[in-house]
Amino acid sequence: MARASSRPLFAETLAPDRLAALYRATRQRTLALIEGLAPEDMTVQSMEDASPTKWHLAHTSWFFEEFVLRPHLAGYASPDERFAFLFNSYYVAAGPRFARDRRGLVTRPTVAEVLDYRAGVDAAMARLLDSGEAPADLIELGCHHEMQHQELLLTDLLHVLSHNPLLPVYRAPTPLASVEAAPAGWQRFEGGIVEIGHGGDSFAYDCEGPRHQALLRPYELATRAVTCGEWLEFMADGGYETPGLWLMDGFATARREGWEAPGYWWRDEGGGAGDGSGDGGWMTFSLRGPQPVDPQAPVSHVSYYEAEAFARWAGARLPSEFEWERAAGPVQPGNTLESGALRPRRALAGSGAGSGDGLLQLWGDVWEWTGSSYLPYPGFRAPEGAVGEYNGKFMVNQFVLRGGSALTPRDQLRPTYRNFFYPHQRWQMTGLRLARDA
Amino acid sequence: MARASSRPLFAETLAPDRLAALYRATRQRTLALIEGLAPEDMTVQSMEDASPTKWHLAHTSWFFEEFVLRPHLAGYASPDERFAFLFNSYYVAAGPRFARDRRGLVTRPTVAEVLDYRAGVDAAMARLLDSGEAPADLIELGCHHEMQHQELLLTDLLHVLSHNPLLPVYRAPTPLASVEAAPAGWQRFEGGIVEIGHGGDSFAYDCEGPRHQALLRPYELATRAVTCGEWLEFMADGGYETPGLWLMDGFATARREGWEAPGYWWRDEGGGAGDGSGDGGWMTFSLRGPQPVDPQAPVSHVSYYEAEAFARWAGARLPSEFEWERAAGPVQPGNTLESGALRPRRALAGSGAGSGDGLLQLWGDVWEWTGSSYLPYPGFRAPEGAVGEYNGKFMVNQFVLRGGSALTPRDQLRPTYRNFFYPHQRWQMTGLRLARDA
Amino acid sequence: MARASSRPLFAETLAPDRLAALYRATRQRTLALIEGLAPEDMTVQSMEDASPTKWHLAHTSWFFEEFVLRPHLAGYASPDERFAFLFNSYYVAAGPRFARDRRGLVTRPTVAEVLDYRAGVDAAMARLLDSGEAPADLIELGCHHEMQHQELLLTDLLHVLSHNPLLPVYRAPTPLASVEAAPAGWQRFEGGIVEIGHGGDSFAYDCEGPRHQALLRPYELATRAVTCGEWLEFMADGGYETPGLWLMDGFATARREGWEAPGYWWRDEGGGAGDGSGDGGWMTFSLRGPQPVDPQAPVSHVSYYEAEAFARWAGARLPSEFEWERAAGPVQPGNTLESGALRPRRALAGSGAGSGDGLLQLWGDVWEWTGSSYLPYPGFRAPEGAVGEYNGKFMVNQFVLRGGSALTPRDQLRPTYRNFFYPHQRWQMTGLRLARDA
Amino acid sequence: MARASSRPLFAETLAPDRLAALYRATRQRTLALIEGLAPEDMTVQSMEDASPTKWHLAHTSWFFEEFVLRPHLAGYASPDERFAFLFNSYYVAAGPRFARDRRGLVTRPTVAEVLDYRAGVDAAMARLLDSGEAPADLIELGCHHEMQHQELLLTDLLHVLSHNPLLPVYRAPTPLASVEAAPAGWQRFEGGIVEIGHGGDSFAYDCEGPRHQALLRPYELATRAVTCGEWLEFMADGGYETPGLWLMDGFATARREGWEAPGYWWRDEGGGAGDGSGDGGWMTFSLRGPQPVDPQAPVSHVSYYEAEAFARWAGARLPSEFEWERAAGPVQPGNTLESGALRPRRALAGSGAGSGDGLLQLWGDVWEWTGSSYLPYPGFRAPEGAVGEYNGKFMVNQFVLRGGSALTPRDQLRPTYRNFFYPHQRWQMTGLRLARDA
Repeated sequence: MARASSRPLFAETLAPDRLAALYRATRQRTLALIEGLAPEDMTVQSMEDASPTKWHLAHTSWFFEEFVLRPHLAGYASPDERFAFLFNSYYVAAGPRFARDRRGLVTRPTVAEVLDYRAGVDAAMARLLDSGEAPADLIELGCHHEMQHQELLLTDLLHVLSHNPLLPVYRAPTPLASVEAAPAGWQRFEGGIVEIGHGGDSFAYDCEGPRHQALLRPYELATRAVTCGEWLEFMADGGYETPGLWLMDGFATARREGWEAPGYWWRDEGGGAGDGSGDGGWMTFSLRGPQPVDPQAPVSHVSYYEAEAFARWAGARLPSEFEWERAAGPVQPGNTLESGALRPRRALAGSGAGSGDGLLQLWGDVWEWTGSSYLPYPGFRAPEGAVGEYNGKFMVNQFVLRGGSALTPRDQLRPTYRNFFYPHQRWQMTGLRLARDA
Repeated sequence: MARASSRPLFAETLAPDRLAALYRATRQRTLALIEGLAPEDMTVQSMEDASPTKWHLAHTSWFFEEFVLRPHLAGYASPDERFAFLFNSYYVAAGPRFARDRRGLVTRPTVAEVLDYRAGVDAAMARLLDSGEAPADLIELGCHHEMQHQELLLTDLLHVLSHNPLLPVYRAPTPLASVEAAPAGWQRFEGGIVEIGHGGDSFAYDCEGPRHQALLRPYELATRAVTCGEWLEFMADGGYETPGLWLMDGFATARREGWEAPGYWWRDEGGGAGDGSGDGGWMTFSLRGPQPVDPQAPVSHVSYYEAEAFARWAGARLPSEFEWERAAGPVQPGNTLESGALRPRRALAGSGAGSGDGLLQLWGDVWEWTGSSYLPYPGFRAPEGAVGEYNGKFMVNQFVLRGGSALTPRDQLRPTYRNFFYPHQRWQMTGLRLARDA
Repeated sequence: MARASSRPLFAETLAPDRLAALYRATRQRTLALIEGLAPEDMTVQSMEDASPTKWHLAHTSWFFEEFVLRPHLAGYASPDERFAFLFNSYYVAAGPRFARDRRGLVTRPTVAEVLDYRAGVDAAMARLLDSGEAPADLIELGCHHEMQHQELLLTDLLHVLSHNPLLPVYRAPTPLASVEAAPAGWQRFEGGIVEIGHGGDSFAYDCEGPRHQALLRPYELATRAVTCGEWLEFMADGGYETPGLWLMDGFATARREGWEAPGYWWRDEGGGAGDGSGDGGWMTFSLRGPQPVDPQAPVSHVSYYEAEAFARWAGARLPSEFEWERAAGPVQPGNTLESGALRPRRALAGSGAGSGDGLLQLWGDVWEWTGSSYLPYPGFRAPEGAVGEYNGKFMVNQFVLRGGSALTPRDQLRPTYRNFFYPHQRWQMTGLRLARDA
Repeated sequence: MARASSRPLFAETLAPDRLAALYRATRQRTLALIEGLAPEDMTVQSMEDASPTKWHLAHTSWFFEEFVLRPHLAGYASPDERFAFLFNSYYVAAGPRFARDRRGLVTRPTVAEVLDYRAGVDAAMARLLDSGEAPADLIELGCHHEMQHQELLLTDLLHVLSHNPLLPVYRAPTPLASVEAAPAGWQRFEGGIVEIGHGGDSFAYDCEGPRHQALLRPYELATRAVTCGEWLEFMADGGYETPGLWLMDGFATARREGWEAPGYWWRDEGGGAGDGSGDGGWMTFSLRGPQPVDPQAPVSHVSYYEAEAFARWAGARLPSEFEWERAAGPVQPGNTLESGALRPRRALAGSGAGSGDGLLQLWGDVWEWTGSSYLPYPGFRAPEGAVGEYNGKFMVNQFVLRGGSALTPRDQLRPTYRNFFYPHQRWQMTGLRLARDA
């Protein structure tokens, strides 16, 4: 990377041994994710927004090659200089790149060749990490970058598999817990000036700062996420057919796309009580295969448009990202990628699986749409050079999501983390939590 | 209108004589705008975003018929019940409506018939205004609604005429003032908690409230709008070809649309010094016909994407809508639709044509893009019934503009007024003013 | 026109007085067609395939200006040189032209100005016709060209009016004849070598020649066109839902476009016996306004795809254009544009309104799709210069239609006349006659 | 197959041992084609017109399963009933099928599983062939069907590989013959009535009959195909920029697609004499990798639109399919799929590699566009049942090609064989031979 200055991206970098461990663990987890996949599964691109598994494997390696090995490991030579063109995603400053919507047309290098490429990068990284010359900030950034792609790899794979009428299963189903979900309640928060954004010296993405003050009014947050059962009520009440509940762009999108339920839901025509299918015969497709919709589980794969309409129907609203961040206590996961969850849990009263304040399901079930546009914080300036393209250039037309899903790696969970997607997108594990004025 | 309650939309309604005068003046101004137009000019729709002049004439009359006359004037009968279908814009609660993108296909009623329809509505409105039973809030809303359409009528007409290679002129050119524009400076504002939004009892659109507190940091605003001359520097510096200056969606839009200058600009191939064409031979098309680009005049017809990129290029940023509102002093127009301006003025030092604080061109030159997404203010709730669709359902994917343009009626100028458009749109008179952290 | 040689387009040109009479009559008939239309009606373009009335008025005048007046009338000057750009249709050799799909955006010149332009061309043409120097072949071509546009003017106008939910009427309805239609029969024709194509010295379009031999096998033609009643049977039998009856491209088009009946048909939901609506409540929209479908009248506004599927359903096929031409006896109209017909007649046994051989409705009811692709006849060569673009460059992807419709001028009826449209188009008055092997 | 009657598709079926040998050889050749391909190569679909290799492998097996094994082998059970849905191409009568444009999204079954499926079908077919009950006509049809897919498999694979900037090579390049190509000449044929179409009792596709008479006029055919060198002259003469040479639809397509050379050609910017690149630096991509354009080789990958324009530029025309068929003597291949050719040869005088009449390159170099629309022969009726959908429903909007390409299996070469593609398509090995009136 053409690093603009010697100033690190953040102050408190990891010690060498912890950095090496993070690198190894991150890289290893990616490989664990592809166990059981065939080369065919890893090659296909099902829409422009999603990328082939193979591309994720290669791109995350290219990131280390481009931003760490080339500038910092003397004598490093790429096994194929053309990979830089193939596997750069969107970093204009890092050179030209292959069209994003054609990633699925590139059959060579094969998966095996890409794994060789990964292994070569890993070997070079091991040398660099041993050398004492490793740029700790960039390597930690690369690890977090790869964690983001771990989640995307899975959501993109789910999208690919969902197009197959054979409904292939990525991981075997696990039995549902038989306990009842906790009832929903409201948690009140006072207004006032609060501190928002990442302020410490440890790693965070640039868009999480600068830390700054925001003025809040008193508000309440629902103590758990909206469930599939509640969503079925919205559907039964004509939610998808009532324009007055929707933003105009949202309703137009829903009509054009033919939405009448969350993503990956379909009605099992032969369904009904007794045969295992969900309420009204609704089924859903997940990385654990087709399953009846669980009314007690958080709804997922809903767009911002749907979430916003649901909130209006429920006489509530979406929280702002500041309201969410202020309310989130310490991270308490237990349902992340590391745990092999792959799907959201039911909210369990007393489980402590939220914050200490009584909010459940904040971490590791579904990403929660907020009503906040993804815009720069006051005083935000992107770093110079190619890594400055990491977040800043996306700050338009998207909405912020907070929390984390069952596909999110543990280290990505952070009260200040700002995820963002377009309001029409729903191939991520996106749900919602209601808010209202106090 | 199915009025949900007897509560008026706002508290301080106009006295009957002032209300009648406002109604007559508003309706008369609309008619003045179409002087010199042929029926052909008034029939065509040049894109989905724009409507035919004839449709504006009819829709504004339908608004009074639907929301005022039908519910409030006993015995009122529409000359043609089918007009409700043809001339409803987007009020779902007011019934079905004709497809927006096909408004230009409706040749009947003719312009003459629509003017008859207007006259009939005016006669009925006169009876109602005389009766003492007139719903003052709805009538004032209808007048403001018609003022908005006066501006749209002109921007849409400009768009139609611009497709004609004969470059027809709507109003005769007027000579440019020969004075130099004032140099740009910066005006500083302190941070702190400020009051934002319409708080009085007089008329304002629902989206201008509720009045609420916002927290600002110290900032500076440019004392005048960005000029065409400054924009030419941006162009000469490769602004349109430098992806690093742009939001990703913005650059993609600019490439797809082939933007290389503001809307309605083109390069006169035979142009050059001495023949009256502008810098580098750039010409622009306006309601006063084709004209050389005036380097001293505010740039107009730029999208949010372009404005945002320009600000980055200039080492500045766009102001937030709160920063703008707090800085705006009392309205001081002089360059509005009533004055027959039709194009922005040069900024004149000491002219007082801004606020008393030294800010020039705030009112009546170009709408100024802010960096704020168009979202509801805290506590916003749309009124019940069809008028509740006036603003709220557009609160996604758009950005707020403040101020007013040379096509804006005087009564639309208000420090709290929130105009909004999509970030790619540029057929309105949209420009920008720079801001920066203090 | 850059006429390549002094050789006329055809040998037997009209005498000067007959030529002048043809010119005047043709031009006058065009003006008669627009009686009762408002400028609004004449300005709008409802799809790329159709042009505004105003454009037809101007383009037919431009044709005389470009190909007759400029090269042959000394001192002729156009009132506006820019009209050549605006009103050239597709003659590349005649210079650049305005985009076809934007003809409806040109509001100026107004209709009144276009009529002035027409009058100016007529005055100049009168001088040229008086001078004895008039190029008779080009003028006769120009008249036939204008006759084609007379028909298009009406079909394009119908398309515009059909988008208006008010269903405006172009010409008052006329009562339907109460007589029964003649029953359908088959007329047999022997095989052998026949002469095809225009062979005389009088006017015909280039694509009607060269006259040449074709080999036919014995065949039969239906004695009248397929009726709406027969089409209703096809619909009732699931014709539009049975893929096995259709060409694959045809069925895909029908699905995509949502076809379930001929063009301009709709089902009157309140319809039924006794209220004047047609069979099953089907209504149709015509230049005489909305009308019940008449089961005895020839079906019209069906695409090639539909016609071909219908023929298969009926156990028959479409005739080849050679089979049609060989069977057509002398022209016997009575239902043409001159007669003010505007819609097809019922077939009347013994009416003689076909050929002397027993074939009814050959002339002046509906254009009849043939199963022949529009391809050049053996030895065809387009004339040099711009008029060479008249027909030849369209010889791909289209099918030949024969006969003529109720909107066709009498002088366009000719056994050798080859009309052609794309297989998906149905805004023309297009029907069919069945054929089968003998 | 729901076979409508016991009448075989053709009279002269193969003896059991020859049938079994044909089956085995055909199936074996398909497997030989995928040697060296990775699963990734075989999974991707690069456009709707092309299918993944894996799909071809499965679909050809499904054809035997559906039309031969299910109805004729007692007790046959498919390994997966859902394959019928996945691998039916377009046979509506054989049941519903997966969307054609999504074939590339189906990652399971994997290639290995599809090969198992093939092996299972082969085993069952071996039993049926041994049983003496095998329907010889359907099996021979299935073999020819698979041969067609062998060619498509390769053209589709070429299309996939061409999107890869690494330019992967399917088969190693072979040195070009150093001999000069034979000069072009003209071969004259007399006019008169000729017999056209397949008339014997042996296998042919339904669309090749019925045999019937056609009337020809005297004509001449070029003695060899148009070469790349001649095409370069067309390009140098502005062929792609001269609208007067083109059909209107053709020129519009060429502009829209940005065509300025045949498919798979690009200009090597560093190219020039001495470095191995072709004339003007033009390179081409083939199954043997990137190669300089060979001016002596037949041009390939040109659309009908381009071929038709070239012929006009050359003062000639395309032959009709009847002219071609009448001129074609006995099949004399030597450059087919079996020979491993993969690319067209230079025409060698005296090589006898055409017909005995002096026509070279008729067989096994490039498919030759004719000027004939793909329409049914007189008296054509599709067989009943699903196999009746094999050809008939495509008889619109396509043009006939004759001969065969270097990717065509030997057994597909036949003077009566009618290949057909849309006029804009050029991913097949399509070239042309000139004709003219004698």
